[in-house]
Amino acid sequence: MRNILIIGAGRSASSLIKYLLDKSEEEQLFLTVGDVNIKSANTLLNDHPNAKAMVLDVFHDKQRREAIDNADIVISMLPARYHIEVAKDCLEFGKNLVTASYISDEMLNLDSKVKSKELVFMNEIGLDPGIDHMSAMQVIDRIREKGGKMLLFESFCGGLVAPESDTNLWNYKFTWNPRNVVLAGQGGAAEFIQEGKYKYIPYHRLFRRTEFLDINGYGRFEGYANRNSLKYREIYGLEDILTLYRGTIRRVGFSKAWNMFVQLGMTDDSYRLQKTENMSYREFVNLFLPYSPTDAVELKLRHSLKIDQDDLMWDKLVELDIFNPNKKLGLKNATPAECLQKILMDKWMLEPEDKDMIVMYHKFGYELNGKKHQIDSNMVIKGDDQTFTAMAKTVGLPVAIATLKILNGEITTPGVQLPITKEVYEPILKELEAYGIIFKEYELDYLGYNPDNIYG
Amino acid sequence: MRNILIIGAGRSASSLIKYLLDKSEEEQLFLTVGDVNIKSANTLLNDHPNAKAMVLDVFHDKQRREAIDNADIVISMLPARYHIEVAKDCLEFGKNLVTASYISDEMLNLDSKVKSKELVFMNEIGLDPGIDHMSAMQVIDRIREKGGKMLLFESFCGGLVAPESDTNLWNYKFTWNPRNVVLAGQGGAAEFIQEGKYKYIPYHRLFRRTEFLDINGYGRFEGYANRNSLKYREIYGLEDILTLYRGTIRRVGFSKAWNMFVQLGMTDDSYRLQKTENMSYREFVNLFLPYSPTDAVELKLRHSLKIDQDDLMWDKLVELDIFNPNKKLGLKNATPAECLQKILMDKWMLEPEDKDMIVMYHKFGYELNGKKHQIDSNMVIKGDDQTFTAMAKTVGLPVAIATLKILNGEITTPGVQLPITKEVYEPILKELEAYGIIFKEYELDYLGYNPDNIYG
Repeated sequence: MRNILIIGAGRSASSLIKYLLDKSEEEQLFLTVGDVNIKSANTLLNDHPNAKAMVLDVFHDKQRREAIDNADIVISMLPARYHIEVAKDCLEFGKNLVTASYISDEMLNLDSKVKSKELVFMNEIGLDPGIDHMSAMQVIDRIREKGGKMLLFESFCGGLVAPESDTNLWNYKFTWNPRNVVLAGQGGAAEFIQEGKYKYIPYHRLFRRTEFLDINGYGRFEGYANRNSLKYREIYGLEDILTLYRGTIRRVGFSKAWNMFVQLGMTDDSYRLQKTENMSYREFVNLFLPYSPTDAVELKLRHSLKIDQDDLMWDKLVELDIFNPNKKLGLKNATPAECLQKILMDKWMLEPEDKDMIVMYHKFGYELNGKKHQIDSNMVIKGDDQTFTAMAKTVGLPVAIATLKILNGEITTPGVQLPITKEVYEPILKELEAYGIIFKEYELDYLGYNPDNIYG
Repeated sequence: MRNILIIGAGRSASSLIKYLLDKSEEEQLFLTVGDVNIKSANTLLNDHPNAKAMVLDVFHDKQRREAIDNADIVISMLPARYHIEVAKDCLEFGKNLVTASYISDEMLNLDSKVKSKELVFMNEIGLDPGIDHMSAMQVIDRIREKGGKMLLFESFCGGLVAPESDTNLWNYKFTWNPRNVVLAGQGGAAEFIQEGKYKYIPYHRLFRRTEFLDINGYGRFEGYANRNSLKYREIYGLEDILTLYRGTIRRVGFSKAWNMFVQLGMTDDSYRLQKTENMSYREFVNLFLPYSPTDAVELKLRHSLKIDQDDLMWDKLVELDIFNPNKKLGLKNATPAECLQKILMDKWMLEPEDKDMIVMYHKFGYELNGKKHQIDSNMVIKGDDQTFTAMAKTVGLPVAIATLKILNGEITTPGVQLPITKEVYEPILKELEAYGIIFKEYELDYLGYNPDNIYG
């Protein structure tokens, strides 16, 4: 038996574990799933003979090191900041490592040592980062092999609720960490490049500069810019590209409505409010509006944000029960963002029968033999239930497949890696298709930024 | 002769030095003005027999300590962060100290040692902080002595251009540090209290929540909120006050126009732009607007900010020549704020004959014998020229007067002080009147937040 150690049995571990258990007989695998809390690991393993759960605290050096020493390969599904301890042990004990997280500077610093030990530390092999890299590089490499020159690359991804579970006016529920959703886009201006021009969007305008995306059978979505698109020039070898833009997908109208919270200042996480414990939702809203002896919070908000009487945005606020004078926040000295998260969690949590949905959309513009072309490529995948969510499948399956391929010597290039080479992405994307993770491609006329051929 | 050491001979030292030189015979004073650059000190001293300039680098320990040891009292006009070195020496050598800056935590930590040596370290005795404290506390103490209960305190201050030099559409020129003007309001939400309700304004809304102030003979001004008004509850002993608000004064329309820069993201100082050295003003503006193959920067900006064809805001932009494709920024990898400052400095610098103007406006609401009252108090002072500016007079004269009164034993309360006690503010405000720094008071009906008695 070959020992696979999985550290961290959180929400994205289900499909990963299922994949490896399903192959465990045929591939002679034994899984050890370590977590501080083994309850969910035990549920996922369901007394499978080729697996065991163990209590593993990543900060307990002896425990962690012993577990890693006993493994043939290690998967870290911990929050990104904890990978480095695992990575150092893997280096010491000569074990390959797989993570679904962005390569940190600390991790990158291990590269030469990892190479000299001929180890594979495969990172960024989940959904985003992960499937985005692989599906993009597959098309980019194909265009290059034909002799095409890349002009434009736009890439969008979003975790949403499946249409059959889409029951609120925001067309949104929390399918992942709510805090990240509330803080999305903060920490600096969004920076990208369009037709060779650098562009910057400050946070308070981010949700008003969206673009639409149409997907056959699923209708229209919108995308707002991620913070730093420009680093992908180097990663994907697109140094001279004219347009490079990465974004987050929401259903149409979400961003414009979310902008209400941004404008009011409710997404700010940089300071603490006074007396939030006994503060009502209504009082929270009133913090961000001028004092008036005569006017209700409702009209002050409508006036402040210029919301017309018949604007659906208003109903979105009402749906959240944000004007309720009796519901209390119950949070001690919370930040505005923490209070908003509390209010949203009343309404945006998934119901037991709800399903999530992942949407990814790429646009590739290129020139070949003097003519401009465009390929659009997109992928939609729905969760089966609240265990095998779309998020768990799209994050966990690439990790699982990569792990087995490294174990079997099919992926061998040593170093701190990410899945942008053909050796990695071709077999993994191929195998993902069997699990419904399939990109549909459309050849279009090159649209660029003047699709209707309008002249100024 | 009594030796007064003035460290720092910057723009606000002129009136300070003139006051002390004018009294030097009568009061037996000898002034030593130390600065790294003694050119402006020499100009200000003009070979006066009772004064000398000396090269003094505050980071040169020996130089600084010797100068302080030779003085009978020390005035530090350095930037606030450098006071602490001077203060430590003053403590060691037993010298009194005067500064016009906010008391830092480091300075406050010296309090018990300063008291035990029976020294006076008088701080915050310039304009703002300074004259604001004194003029406010004088009225607040008077209200309290009558048995009144404070309901409301609002206080505004602004450094502006005098009406006769007010020649641009913004009704504004840089009369002080341009960088501080560009960054004004950044670093956190503005926090204050209105009728017992806490209120928070995020930076990107700050310039759209102004209030008007009318001053006899000068017309209408506007004020936007300063960042933290609430600390004045403790300083002024207004713990139970219902309304406390401090703000910055501008001419009407400035804030709404300034908000264009805020909205575009041009006041951001948190990240660096690419290739700013050879970037034109026009290209700089275009960074913050979507790419278009057909539309000019002008229309994109109008559309983005919803500026109507006949809106004066537009002319304010044009006046700044911000759409010029030939003017270059000439700044290496600058932040947006640095670029904006460069553009504004082309147009908003004072001409040699221009005069500045300081405006301060207080509102005091109180209840006495069951009836509500309001006192408005304001002060306007203009500069004489570009040496004896309104800023130099209002910052320097209180410092000078306080220094002489400490030297003469008229202000004696030891410790790290600010001018909020009668011992300090009464004689200083009295003497300032001789220099035209006079507050006019108006008794009004209590207006509060429903001046027109409107009911909801």
